[in-house]
Amino acid sequence: MIRTVFFVSDGTAITGETVGHSMLTQFADVDYKQVRVPFVNDRAAALEAVAQINAARKQDQAQPIVFNTIVDEELSAVIRSSSGVVLDLFATFLQTLENALGVKRQPRVGHGHGVRDFEAYEDRMKATNYALAHDDGISLEFGQADLVLVGVSRSGKTPTCLFMALHYGVNAANYPLTEDDLDEMRLPSFLRRHKHKIVGLMIEPERLAQIRETRKPGSRYASIKQCRKEVELAESLLRMEGIPIFQTTHSSIEEISSRVMMELGVQREMF
Amino acid sequence: MIRTVFFVSDGTAITGETVGHSMLTQFADVDYKQVRVPFVNDRAAALEAVAQINAARKQDQAQPIVFNTIVDEELSAVIRSSSGVVLDLFATFLQTLENALGVKRQPRVGHGHGVRDFEAYEDRMKATNYALAHDDGISLEFGQADLVLVGVSRSGKTPTCLFMALHYGVNAANYPLTEDDLDEMRLPSFLRRHKHKIVGLMIEPERLAQIRETRKPGSRYASIKQCRKEVELAESLLRMEGIPIFQTTHSSIEEISSRVMMELGVQREMF
Repeated sequence: MIRTVFFVSDGTAITGETVGHSMLTQFADVDYKQVRVPFVNDRAAALEAVAQINAARKQDQAQPIVFNTIVDEELSAVIRSSSGVVLDLFATFLQTLENALGVKRQPRVGHGHGVRDFEAYEDRMKATNYALAHDDGISLEFGQADLVLVGVSRSGKTPTCLFMALHYGVNAANYPLTEDDLDEMRLPSFLRRHKHKIVGLMIEPERLAQIRETRKPGSRYASIKQCRKEVELAESLLRMEGIPIFQTTHSSIEEISSRVMMELGVQREMF
Repeated sequence: MIRTVFFVSDGTAITGETVGHSMLTQFADVDYKQVRVPFVNDRAAALEAVAQINAARKQDQAQPIVFNTIVDEELSAVIRSSSGVVLDLFATFLQTLENALGVKRQPRVGHGHGVRDFEAYEDRMKATNYALAHDDGISLEFGQADLVLVGVSRSGKTPTCLFMALHYGVNAANYPLTEDDLDEMRLPSFLRRHKHKIVGLMIEPERLAQIRETRKPGSRYASIKQCRKEVELAESLLRMEGIPIFQTTHSSIEEISSRVMMELGVQREMF
């Protein structure tokens, strides 16, 4: 049986989708069809959402699950009048928060992901530009880096750097270990002087070969033999240099980012 | 008065931080100090979190707010024994979800952002590579694009494309309108044939000048006169071509991404 899951919001619905996914992973055996209903800012949009939910109820012959993050109480009441099981992710806690903080809330619709201020936006842009300019060995000047990821080609460095830049405003550089580095078994000097802010990303050779194969099918670069050799040498080099190593094979980008920042003591608020 | 806010999790704490930020924006007058406590996977880590919360209680002379997304009931109980106001973002709803779905949950700790499967990870990587290869006019071949953002330099195209790639696996390309394009008042032919998947990003000239100024201080490029001219011409060109336009000045990257995908009917599950 397939269940329909709705993410209803007065903003992007990203918050509801994040929470919803986290909770739904606890129910591995259920199949879902997911529907995002963002920008529900007036009664007409709310009624339209209810119509969608009720239609799914009929089609599925089962109650849809509705993750609701609408702030406005009247619009939320409209959503609750649907035939879905409505989980009010915000409303449930706002009264508790009011009591705890001792102030009344001032509803600001859809600002869950609004622009906080110019400086915050600037930080995000600058960090993204930094990551792009210091990706994959483009620039080897790491003086302004908050951290530098090193590893063999396709070990997950680029997306991890971009994620940290976009979400934490961190200046994240990366450097792909070359065959020369692996032959000499030492970090190049332009890296060595920033040793305290370097971490290594490591990946299982089988997975690496699989990733490289989709990129350059049948190449030596993608062969399991080459991948095994590079991973083994890279791991030895990093251990010798005393660089902390993170395995990426069974981790998400979010998890690696979080662990790397913790390891290096880089503390930033999330955007 | 400054209040301390904790995000306690058995995973990255990203979900709790996302929800927490959204709720806290409803209380504009309160100042916060935020503390992330990720990877709380055993009793020792939970007790350490409690110690941190209790210390903040003493220092602030006020109850800390604790956004808790730990799944394990015993560990959550430890967190609730702290002197903070604990909001159980998951536990509160899991019973309702069990009833609605008619199945018991199978606790999977810290998998809110785990790797779902190889294909999903691959999609994310491929889309990120695509965005990098089709950024800022690097490649003008848009056949594989799900969407193409056009706009003047520094109107927010690159971070928006990277966000959509990382979080939705969307092939997002972008093209910066050149002086030639603006002089000729028409889209170049390599874009025109993909008109149905193009949207324009527009920005207020004052904001654009401010952004460009941090990049090339005192330049003609950053002058308000130049910015006004480019924005005006770009807007005319896009209107003439019938391309939908989104204003980015007062929107976050998340919001622009969400609106653009809605406009073009690009529906993807969020990673």
